[in-house]
Amino acid sequence: MAKSEPPRIGITIGDPAGIGPEICIKALGDDSVRAACCPILIGHLDVLERAARQVQSPIRLSAVKTEGLHSVEVVETGDPSHDFQIGVDGADSGRASARYIETAVDLWREGKLDAIATAPISKMALSLAGYEFPGHTEFLAHLTGTGKVVMSFFAEKLRVVLLSTHISLLEAIGKVTSENLTALIIFSSHELQRLLGRRPKIAVAGLNPHASEGGLFGSEERLAITPAIDKCRQDHQIDVSGPFSPDTVFLRGFRGEFDAVIALYHDQATVPVKSLSFGSAVNVTLGLPLIRTSVDHGTAFDIAGSGVADAGSMIAAIKLAANLVRNTKDETRGQSC
Amino acid sequence: MAKSEPPRIGITIGDPAGIGPEICIKALGDDSVRAACCPILIGHLDVLERAARQVQSPIRLSAVKTEGLHSVEVVETGDPSHDFQIGVDGADSGRASARYIETAVDLWREGKLDAIATAPISKMALSLAGYEFPGHTEFLAHLTGTGKVVMSFFAEKLRVVLLSTHISLLEAIGKVTSENLTALIIFSSHELQRLLGRRPKIAVAGLNPHASEGGLFGSEERLAITPAIDKCRQDHQIDVSGPFSPDTVFLRGFRGEFDAVIALYHDQATVPVKSLSFGSAVNVTLGLPLIRTSVDHGTAFDIAGSGVADAGSMIAAIKLAANLVRNTKDETRGQSC
Repeated sequence: MAKSEPPRIGITIGDPAGIGPEICIKALGDDSVRAACCPILIGHLDVLERAARQVQSPIRLSAVKTEGLHSVEVVETGDPSHDFQIGVDGADSGRASARYIETAVDLWREGKLDAIATAPISKMALSLAGYEFPGHTEFLAHLTGTGKVVMSFFAEKLRVVLLSTHISLLEAIGKVTSENLTALIIFSSHELQRLLGRRPKIAVAGLNPHASEGGLFGSEERLAITPAIDKCRQDHQIDVSGPFSPDTVFLRGFRGEFDAVIALYHDQATVPVKSLSFGSAVNVTLGLPLIRTSVDHGTAFDIAGSGVADAGSMIAAIKLAANLVRNTKDETRGQSC
Repeated sequence: MAKSEPPRIGITIGDPAGIGPEICIKALGDDSVRAACCPILIGHLDVLERAARQVQSPIRLSAVKTEGLHSVEVVETGDPSHDFQIGVDGADSGRASARYIETAVDLWREGKLDAIATAPISKMALSLAGYEFPGHTEFLAHLTGTGKVVMSFFAEKLRVVLLSTHISLLEAIGKVTSENLTALIIFSSHELQRLLGRRPKIAVAGLNPHASEGGLFGSEERLAITPAIDKCRQDHQIDVSGPFSPDTVFLRGFRGEFDAVIALYHDQATVPVKSLSFGSAVNVTLGLPLIRTSVDHGTAFDIAGSGVADAGSMIAAIKLAANLVRNTKDETRGQSC
C-alpha cells in the first residue's frame, strides 16, 4: 500500500447464522467507512445479499471487483456449504465462519490485505464443525504460528490491555505477580509503539479499592504491581506509571491522559470500556503479525435476522484497522483498491 | 413540609480546608438547585464568604434568614475555631467539619431539615480533632444510633448498592456468600421502596467474567449468588434477577432497565458509576433514619483554594436529596422555607 492509497481491510462476515452479515452490510453503508479504507468482504455472496435485502441496503455486492461507490468486492470462500438456520448453532455455519477466517489470513499472507476486521463467530458452532478454538484470537494465533497474544480494547482515546481474560476472579488475582505484569508491560509497550507509531504512555490500574490507599486494603500493589512498574521504568525505559485508583484511571485514559491502561482482570477492563464507549469499543489482538480488529460483542442469535443489530462496533473496528495500518505502514506495497 | 413546599436541605460545607465551601457556593449559584429546594448551609459564615469572593459568586449569604433570590440562610455552628490552612489537614478544620455534621443532625431531629447533603471531609483531620470515624457514614450512624448502613451510588437512572466497600479484593470475594447477599437484597429492597416510593426492580451482578458463563470460570454464581436471588424471589417476593454479566448490567441499569444493581465489590460499583456519570454521581447512605446524600469525591486539598473545583456532584447531591424527600414525604410537617 502506498501512503496515499486506502488501506485494504478484509472483513470476515462472521457466523452466517448470527448478526455478522447484517452489521457488515450496515457498516459498508456508512460513508466514513468507505472513506477510510478499501473494504473487502470475506464470506458467501448469497448470505450477504440476503442481509442486504433484509436491511434494504443500497449497496451493490459483486463477487468480482467493480469500480464505483456502493460497490463492494466480496471474496467468496471455496465450499458453498451454508445449509444453516438463522439464530442457531450449526456445523455448517461454524465451518463457513472458520473458512472466512482462513481465507482472510491467506489473502493477508499473499499481500492482498493490509489488515482484517472480524465480525462475531460462535464458539459452539466452530466446535460443531470440528474447530476446537475458544475464539478468533486463538484461531488466528494458530493460523499465523504466533506464541503470545494478548487481548486489548480500543475505545477512542481509551486503550486497555488485559493481564488475564476468561478465568475466575479468584484465579485472576493469583495472576497478579510482578513477573507476569513486568512481561505484559514490556509486551504492551512494544506492541503499542508499533500500532500507534509513537512511544506509548502507559498507566497500570491497582487491584484493590483506591489502589489499596497506601496499603490499607490489600498488599498486591506493594508486593507485585509497584515493583513491576519500577523495573519497567528503570531497566527498560518504558513510560509507565501507577498503580492508579481503578475508580478513575479508565476515565483519565478516556480523556487522553495515557495511551493505554493495563487492567488486572477481565471485568476491570470490560466494565469501563463498555460504559465509556457505549457500544463502539473495538477488540484488538496484540502480538499477531497482522493487524486484527474485532467487534466487542457476540453473534446475538436472539436478534439475528431481525434487522435491528447495532453496527457501531463493526464500523469502529473497520475504521480502527484502517487507522492502525496508516500508523504502521509507510512503504509502497501491493496493488491499490 | 407540605407537598407544595420545597424540601429543606441542610448542606454541611465539609472540611473548610478543602473544596467543600467552594462547591457549596457554586452549587447554590445554580438555578436548578434553588428551584428544587430550600437550601440551608451549615458552616462558618466567614469561610463561606471567602469562598464566595474567591469564585466571584453573586450569592448573598446571611447568618439570619432573609427572603429573596440569591440569599441563602447559613446556620453557624457554635465554636468559632477555624484557625486552619487551606489544603492542609488540621485539628481545627477537622473539629469544624465534625461540628457541621452534628449540627445538621440536631436540626433534622428538631424537624428543621428534611434531609442533608454533605460536602467532603478529611478522615485525617477528623482524627486529629479526636473523632475516630473512617468517614461520614459511620459518624452519622453513630449520631443517629443506627445499626446497619450500606453505601450506594445514584447516577441518574443508575443506582448501585455495594456488598462490601473498603476491603481488599480478595477479602471482598470471601464476602460473596448466600447469607450476606440475601440480607443485602432484602435490606436494599426495603430501603429503595422507601426512597423511590415504588417496589424496586433489582438486578444482581455476577462476580466472574460473563457471570461465569454457565460455570465455565468460577463457582460463586452457582453456589452463592443464584441461591440468594432465588430465596429472595420465592420467600420474600422481591423483584430481583441475575446474576448478570458485569460487562453490561451497569449500562443496562443506566438505561433504566432496573431500579438498582447490586455490586459485589467496591470497584465493580465505582468504576461503572464514575465512567457513566462523568462526575455527577451521588453517594447515598441506605439505612439511616434521615435521608443523606453526599458528593462522590474527596476534599481535593491539591486544588482547594484555586477556584477550579467542579461542583457537578454537589449539585447532583442536593437535587437528589430534594427528590428523595419528595418521594418519601406526603404529610404536612414543620415550617416552610
